[in-house]
Amino acid sequence: MFQVNPHYAKLPGSYLFAEIGRRVRAFQAANTDINVISLGIGDVSVPLTPAVIKALHEATDEMGTKSSFKGYGPEQGYDFLREAIVASDYKARGMDIGADEVFVSDGAKCDVGNFQELFADDVRIAVTDPVYPVYVDSNAMSGRTGSFVNDNWDKLIYLPCTAENNFVPDFPKETPDVIYLCYPNNPTGTVLNRDALKAWVDYARNNGAIILYDSAYKAFISGDDIPHSIYEIDGAREVAVEFRSYSKTAGFTGLRCAYTVVPKDIQVKGQKVDLNAMWNRRQCTKYNGCPYIVQKAAAAVHSAEGQAESAAIVKGYMDNATKVRQTLKNMGMEVYGGEHAPYVWIRTPKLGNGYTPSWDFFQHVLDNAHVVCTPGAGFGPSGETYARFTAFAAPANTDEALARLKASL
Amino acid sequence: MFQVNPHYAKLPGSYLFAEIGRRVRAFQAANTDINVISLGIGDVSVPLTPAVIKALHEATDEMGTKSSFKGYGPEQGYDFLREAIVASDYKARGMDIGADEVFVSDGAKCDVGNFQELFADDVRIAVTDPVYPVYVDSNAMSGRTGSFVNDNWDKLIYLPCTAENNFVPDFPKETPDVIYLCYPNNPTGTVLNRDALKAWVDYARNNGAIILYDSAYKAFISGDDIPHSIYEIDGAREVAVEFRSYSKTAGFTGLRCAYTVVPKDIQVKGQKVDLNAMWNRRQCTKYNGCPYIVQKAAAAVHSAEGQAESAAIVKGYMDNATKVRQTLKNMGMEVYGGEHAPYVWIRTPKLGNGYTPSWDFFQHVLDNAHVVCTPGAGFGPSGETYARFTAFAAPANTDEALARLKASL
Repeated sequence: MFQVNPHYAKLPGSYLFAEIGRRVRAFQAANTDINVISLGIGDVSVPLTPAVIKALHEATDEMGTKSSFKGYGPEQGYDFLREAIVASDYKARGMDIGADEVFVSDGAKCDVGNFQELFADDVRIAVTDPVYPVYVDSNAMSGRTGSFVNDNWDKLIYLPCTAENNFVPDFPKETPDVIYLCYPNNPTGTVLNRDALKAWVDYARNNGAIILYDSAYKAFISGDDIPHSIYEIDGAREVAVEFRSYSKTAGFTGLRCAYTVVPKDIQVKGQKVDLNAMWNRRQCTKYNGCPYIVQKAAAAVHSAEGQAESAAIVKGYMDNATKVRQTLKNMGMEVYGGEHAPYVWIRTPKLGNGYTPSWDFFQHVLDNAHVVCTPGAGFGPSGETYARFTAFAAPANTDEALARLKASL
Repeated sequence: MFQVNPHYAKLPGSYLFAEIGRRVRAFQAANTDINVISLGIGDVSVPLTPAVIKALHEATDEMGTKSSFKGYGPEQGYDFLREAIVASDYKARGMDIGADEVFVSDGAKCDVGNFQELFADDVRIAVTDPVYPVYVDSNAMSGRTGSFVNDNWDKLIYLPCTAENNFVPDFPKETPDVIYLCYPNNPTGTVLNRDALKAWVDYARNNGAIILYDSAYKAFISGDDIPHSIYEIDGAREVAVEFRSYSKTAGFTGLRCAYTVVPKDIQVKGQKVDLNAMWNRRQCTKYNGCPYIVQKAAAAVHSAEGQAESAAIVKGYMDNATKVRQTLKNMGMEVYGGEHAPYVWIRTPKLGNGYTPSWDFFQHVLDNAHVVCTPGAGFGPSGETYARFTAFAAPANTDEALARLKASL
């Protein structure tokens, strides 16, 4: 008789952003005249840039013309885009990545969610805590994280990142087989410097582990002290897979394009592990490539015009981040991140005795400032008594939200 | 220490279409002056239609304008498309499907490949044989099909479809938990009539099994005798999930849009199994929605103008299919399919004693007619001594290919 995957039943009932949406709708229903401003979910607000729009129109016309129409494309992405990625994102910064190590897709969330299919069922998973939920949930669905008891997965290795360790994860007691790292970090907005990242690459090499490195926010880094890619670290080609996206960099959240780098040198304790061939097989079997017109749009992001336009968008968001940081700091809060990332992470202020539970803080801010943030506990146990504010709202909305926060906290 | 998914190593080395590509390239390299015509892979050749192109341009302009820009969309698809699908593909034909049972995606291959994630590891899988490789490979990667020995997966239940049973699968000896059916069929181009499909729905209900019904080719059905959807059969809402695509219907192979219907009534022996909620959770966790501009293009396919344009494309392909069918028949071959599908399936003629092995036939046709077909054995053991010809080439190329086949066989 047919049976379902038993691990789905272990997932906690409500997805973080669904619960936030529910609470915001309840508030709006009771207060129809109030304009709620969201500094909650990490979605962009600036439209696609002229270079991208031009490329979309041109590619659309190609698709309507017999001589230039494109059917199925390569599952790995078109060479024109894979080569543009290598040239502008890797070779230009001195990193040695081949075009056949780049796999274009429709989203970093998809890639990071699907990549665990290549792992044995019983590999031990480590995640920084707080964490982007997809790393955990995709492994939970495959049964690798055990049971969810008291808000903890009992087979997951948590790497707490809090003010106490300056948001730099310590090596865990138990040795993981797979380590998810995301820098600049979502949700904390913090970064790892070169030495800290090198320590993790060395740890993985010495312990036979693989690092899944999510660098979806690399465009928000200013200066060259902070590594933009894990492949700036010696030895990373042997242990690290890197995920990148056009979503936040170029406003592609609704257009959908990303890429994953899977080096051919991956090895575990000296033994070659051909994740490149396995990912290629996975994508050829279960994926059919990113739309041609979207890949042309992504290629336009790598043009001189596109680069200048993206940089202007990122600067706008980082101006917001600076304002959020400064305002909350001036209000006397403990503020982290927001210097190389579009996320500002705060310790929830004392509304009663001690730090406020993050869902209480969320509700207080919604009820009194009519502003949406994201409660830190939604990102994992170590996010409790923290909250995230994003820099993606329009500047005028950001200003208004900050004025309201000042008046009500 | 990190370990990979052990089931990948069991997959046979070469993917069918990769092997075909390799042989065609080898032939071309040795014969640079010969124009090889492909009636092999099932990719379309007619460009996107005016209604679709117009929708893409309009949606692109929306994405470049602040007031109409769209970021993350619903993971399940926009309501405007889900409602258009329900209205034109289900309600108009008297079927009761809700918009919240329709999940829009970037491809039926992705959906059909990913859907097995909802099943327990040890469910028994049945596939018609020959078969579209994704059903088998996606389950093989999850370990459900056992080992590949003598060109057979030893835990997979094969349902042979050959000239001997008129391509209607018999019920198997062992009871499967999941049954993959694809009608109109890829690769054989054959169909199930209403009684035959009803028998399978009843079988699933009586045996506690689920049917995954791939109806990617439903637009090629002529007349109303052949069911267009499994939901035309009483009781199918309780046991069947249906996959559909704009790829072949509207030329979207390079644009990427499809949808999957997951009824809320699914049950196994009277016990509700909420695959709708599980698929929703899977998509929300590992997918981020189909691009807005592509969904607007798909909605245009459902407009009166779009429907007329798609029908004209389908008619063109079916005119090719008729020519392929007739010509091969007139040559004295055993010919199947091609009446409600863009695929013609032939018994390989006797080149020596008895029917020719399908890879030998493939090579003979490539070497002598310079035409690419698909060897039946590539689709499964029961495809041996058969070959597939597709109707997707341009009419002039189809004519030329048929003339060459006549001259060389």
